Amino acid sequence: MSWEEESIAVAEQKEGMSEEDLRWAIGLDLGGSALKAGLVGTDGSITDFERTPIDRLAGPQSLLEAMEVEISRLTGQAVMRGIEPAGVGVGCPGSIERARGRIHKSPNFRGWEDFPLRDRLTRMTNYPICLANDVNAAAVGELKFGAGEDYDNFVMITLGTGVGGALVIGGRLYDGAEGFAGEIGHMVVDPDGPECPCGNRGCLERLVGAEALVERAVVLLEESGQQGILTSFPPDELTPQQIGLAALDGDSVARDVLTEMGRWLGLAFISLINVLDPDCILVGGGIAQAGPPLFDAIRRTVGDHPMSGTARVVPIVTATLGPRAGTAGAGALALWPELTSAP
Amino acid sequence: MSWEEESIAVAEQKEGMSEEDLRWAIGLDLGGSALKAGLVGTDGSITDFERTPIDRLAGPQSLLEAMEVEISRLTGQAVMRGIEPAGVGVGCPGSIERARGRIHKSPNFRGWEDFPLRDRLTRMTNYPICLANDVNAAAVGELKFGAGEDYDNFVMITLGTGVGGALVIGGRLYDGAEGFAGEIGHMVVDPDGPECPCGNRGCLERLVGAEALVERAVVLLEESGQQGILTSFPPDELTPQQIGLAALDGDSVARDVLTEMGRWLGLAFISLINVLDPDCILVGGGIAQAGPPLFDAIRRTVGDHPMSGTARVVPIVTATLGPRAGTAGAGALALWPELTSAP
Repeated sequence: MSWEEESIAVAEQKEGMSEEDLRWAIGLDLGGSALKAGLVGTDGSITDFERTPIDRLAGPQSLLEAMEVEISRLTGQAVMRGIEPAGVGVGCPGSIERARGRIHKSPNFRGWEDFPLRDRLTRMTNYPICLANDVNAAAVGELKFGAGEDYDNFVMITLGTGVGGALVIGGRLYDGAEGFAGEIGHMVVDPDGPECPCGNRGCLERLVGAEALVERAVVLLEESGQQGILTSFPPDELTPQQIGLAALDGDSVARDVLTEMGRWLGLAFISLINVLDPDCILVGGGIAQAGPPLFDAIRRTVGDHPMSGTARVVPIVTATLGPRAGTAGAGALALWPELTSAP
Repeated sequence: MSWEEESIAVAEQKEGMSEEDLRWAIGLDLGGSALKAGLVGTDGSITDFERTPIDRLAGPQSLLEAMEVEISRLTGQAVMRGIEPAGVGVGCPGSIERARGRIHKSPNFRGWEDFPLRDRLTRMTNYPICLANDVNAAAVGELKFGAGEDYDNFVMITLGTGVGGALVIGGRLYDGAEGFAGEIGHMVVDPDGPECPCGNRGCLERLVGAEALVERAVVLLEESGQQGILTSFPPDELTPQQIGLAALDGDSVARDVLTEMGRWLGLAFISLINVLDPDCILVGGGIAQAGPPLFDAIRRTVGDHPMSGTARVVPIVTATLGPRAGTAGAGALALWPELTSAP
């Protein structure tokens, strides 16, 4: 099954919830290339899901308009279904200043520095607005409807262009003193490693982000004398997805890239496990689908012994909601505002 | 002022609490060489404090007896003062399985593997018993009565023979899924570093624990041609305290040791800040008294820029309760059992 099929199947499997119990909210997940929106039910179902391409450099006004269009469309659908959305949840990249409902910074979007997104959306829509970092929203999606359902304390990491993270503690999102916690991508795993734009060296994201993986593949391809599946792509068109698929097909360069990646991730996971003693670590993002070649390498580093900070071998599991996690979680935040650690 | 004087002064400064509001509990802090016990008031005062030497290799029965003697002594004092202790809090080294009230393991104590300390003490004393890891107890002490009073979210690290840690989240102790969180000493800060008995490499404790500091001082002394204050100690009698004092006196070898130590600590702090976005990081333990030579080195590594996981420069501050933090915190846990994350 693909992610999307699984996501729908999970929703359909939920039982014991009568139609009267069902409540709904609008979930918006703003990403680097698209806005994903749908009506999210308390049973985890998502209806009227649509993906609208956006231009992340077009500035806040254009993105606000895209959000307004989607909120309006989903409100119309809700009215026709005879349901009343409880509010709007928005997952958004960057660091979100929770208490003030502002985007503190979102380096990949133009014009989002210190932007009062919550207030602007409130004025536009009259809905209660819940704002969260996109990875935090995805973690809430997994917590309520996905791989995190059985856990009260977990770390979620998302592997994509960047490396995102989120913490669920005591069955709620923990986003830190000001809303910026979960920046797992900026844990230092190699003190002598490459410089990171954040100002430090050897950050996890610099070693296992999309750019780093492709760079590493190009280097290893050269060292191997250009052998294997990956030679069929021009180096500047190589993507982590292709590396993941090639590794699944047994390609040795691709496997080496994932083995190195798994080691860096494993080193970060050792620290996270010792500090947080979580029920599990959830791994999301496209390349998590590479499965065994990546997860075996992570587990070789983490080891099969309990850490000091736990008495168990902490499960490292794949997130299950895939590309709909953010929308589902944004909706969940509007349905259950108490899931945030906001006062 | 010495630590102890400060601690008493802090207690005396508390105002606005009438005698009727005051409640009391018995606080026990079991350490590698002594049991520290006293009556702890809700205003942070500690009375009848005593330090009883213990033999950590003597086995559980002997330690239980020492605890019983102290509980009995303090109960007698309480009766004479006309107060009724609300319960007994015990801080204990090692990993504590919170839900079952058992010591999971405590490597430096003989016979404490999977030991049902809470049940044994309950039977012996009839008091409600609160059991916590010693560093967790110290963090609760700082939270209620010390440097953590103004913060809801902080990381505490204690630098001693080992490197301990504890997390306060949302104004309560967070001790993980099973009670083992906060093992900051086993964060991996140098992936190619020395082996650690825990099974990994380059753990913080292996680089900044007492043994590592003394080893490093001996190496640097040799490289320097045996110059400076530290040459006045035989190498096998050198302690971190002496290194800290020598650094304060400007000794260059001692300063180099603390500079390296500060770098390793700083690397761990960068990761902690990015993951947890805490209000502050509290540093406790004897060598924290070295002050500027250590803290300057930490801050040079952490830098004066906000991390990705925060919008502030996170304060790194010295814990204030010193050697009484554990007793104060153990008492606080008995006074406010809701401070634990136990269900």
